[in-house]
Amino acid sequence: MEEMIKVAVDAMGGDHAPAEVVKGAIDAVTLRRDIKVYLIGRQEIVKEELAKNSYQDSQIEIIHAPEVIETAEPPVLAIRKKKQSSIVVGMHMVKDKEADAFVSAGSSGAVLVGGQVIVGRIKGVERPPLAPLIPTQKGVSLLVDCGANVDARSSHLVQFAKMGSIYMENVLNIPNPRVAIVNIGAEEEKGNALVKETFPLLKNCPDINFVGSIEARDIPRGEADVIVCEAFVGNVILKLYEGVGATMLGMVKAGLMETLQSKIGALLVKPALKKTMKSFDASEYGGAPLLGLNGLVVKTHGSSKAKEVTNSIIQCVTFKEQEINEKIKRNIGGNHGI
Amino acid sequence: MEEMIKVAVDAMGGDHAPAEVVKGAIDAVTLRRDIKVYLIGRQEIVKEELAKNSYQDSQIEIIHAPEVIETAEPPVLAIRKKKQSSIVVGMHMVKDKEADAFVSAGSSGAVLVGGQVIVGRIKGVERPPLAPLIPTQKGVSLLVDCGANVDARSSHLVQFAKMGSIYMENVLNIPNPRVAIVNIGAEEEKGNALVKETFPLLKNCPDINFVGSIEARDIPRGEADVIVCEAFVGNVILKLYEGVGATMLGMVKAGLMETLQSKIGALLVKPALKKTMKSFDASEYGGAPLLGLNGLVVKTHGSSKAKEVTNSIIQCVTFKEQEINEKIKRNIGGNHGI
Repeated sequence: MEEMIKVAVDAMGGDHAPAEVVKGAIDAVTLRRDIKVYLIGRQEIVKEELAKNSYQDSQIEIIHAPEVIETAEPPVLAIRKKKQSSIVVGMHMVKDKEADAFVSAGSSGAVLVGGQVIVGRIKGVERPPLAPLIPTQKGVSLLVDCGANVDARSSHLVQFAKMGSIYMENVLNIPNPRVAIVNIGAEEEKGNALVKETFPLLKNCPDINFVGSIEARDIPRGEADVIVCEAFVGNVILKLYEGVGATMLGMVKAGLMETLQSKIGALLVKPALKKTMKSFDASEYGGAPLLGLNGLVVKTHGSSKAKEVTNSIIQCVTFKEQEINEKIKRNIGGNHGI
Repeated sequence: MEEMIKVAVDAMGGDHAPAEVVKGAIDAVTLRRDIKVYLIGRQEIVKEELAKNSYQDSQIEIIHAPEVIETAEPPVLAIRKKKQSSIVVGMHMVKDKEADAFVSAGSSGAVLVGGQVIVGRIKGVERPPLAPLIPTQKGVSLLVDCGANVDARSSHLVQFAKMGSIYMENVLNIPNPRVAIVNIGAEEEKGNALVKETFPLLKNCPDINFVGSIEARDIPRGEADVIVCEAFVGNVILKLYEGVGATMLGMVKAGLMETLQSKIGALLVKPALKKTMKSFDASEYGGAPLLGLNGLVVKTHGSSKAKEVTNSIIQCVTFKEQEINEKIKRNIGGNHGI
């Protein structure tokens, strides 16, 4: 029998838990027979949800976790106090090698803190970044770091570039991925203190394909595969991306409903628009990995539906198969590596 | 005779200079008889362009400036060396009170440096921010600072908030404008070092209506009127706004052309879409003022067409009529005021 990939999934996390999470898990094990999912959460609720569906019994197991960390809770305190929460239990399964990966749509803060404190960093990795994929005209780019470490130093950004390159090359299958640093102009002398300090380090880094600065306006055009920035800036980029997209779509939709003529036109253009919008939807690719941990932790959107959960679980398989962490260890750990 | 508002305009700046700039100037003086425009640039070229149109002779005057600062030139050096450039000549006219304002679509860097070095700051203003209006679902918001001062300090951000409030209240006519600071979460304890330091200062500032943090995703929804941030972040927001908007529109347009059915639909929805997009277009409101200078300097987009030039010139009238600089002097200059 082939080796099973074991993925722990937070059944209580996100706006649509547990229904959509359970559905996503079932779809994942239906698609791939080499995945085993541990659904972590309140046993009775998860069981009830599972009972609504049919699936391969042996591929899904419930792990009881009576507590839930709410989004509004201070993360450090929550991780320390709620030992029986789905997030803490899932993280421990990864740490103890009972699971290869943990997927959660729950509190971002708790997932970030739990990843660092419970799962722990690969030796040599200074800060594990959160690295979501963002949609572009040409496909997707990895935005790294996006919320894990504000006020980062230049050495952190260099590690983000290396880990991001490994991820894009091996998980997304992009050969020699282009790495760029977010800047306010294309010239080398532009930027704030952090960017000016980091730029020459990236330029002289032999392991990556550094293409220089990227201005925010060129990110949606897909001008780089790995987009390196400090977490505050990354978080602003990620959220503004969603915000501008959602607002514009909302305005377009409202505009289309304004006159009888536009309503008829809307019916005709709907299929084409839907297709376009689907290609601009990063949830197709799964959630955001926290890179550089001793195991894989994937954060999906709080608003995740079944599809994103499924894709995130399947993403864990590629991560494991491509031995991403071994590659990070070799590349970053150097002789500190295990 | 009523007093004329004197606006110096860089006839050589931007992608569509001089044709669109000249056209914009003519439209402005045609709309308002109390504006006098000085078109600064190479006399023969500007003259030739003017000759193509008819306008009120007495309202437009050419000021010869043989040199042009190119976008790629290092700004500090360019301002120092090219004394006969349209930007340097225009700035000096403001400094010497020969003009009330200077409008340019030329090199951002040169406009920012020239504003500080030639026109000079209002006493008490630590850093003059560039403050563009960005479109939102509800109208526009002022994004301040957006490129003038990277690595700003908290005291700068407090001044940005005050000057931005004065601008929005008096030029855009928004009573008691809501001020928010860009942050990566809504809670007070969130943020990087700069935001954590600035938050309580804004909270305790009596002159402004501080509503707390704003996440980037809520900016397009129009959840604040004055959006305060450090210039690197502001620049990223401004450019990503344009980038996501342009990319999405491009994809929607391409999608609409894909099938015969969608092409027919596109014809029907076009008027409604155009109207929607117009309401999401900040160029209706003119360019970005550099706040806190001894005179008004307005930077318009490099890609400005006549309409944005016209609106920017007319914006200068409101700025002057509402005595924005006198209000900034009273509010920020305190007893340093002239």
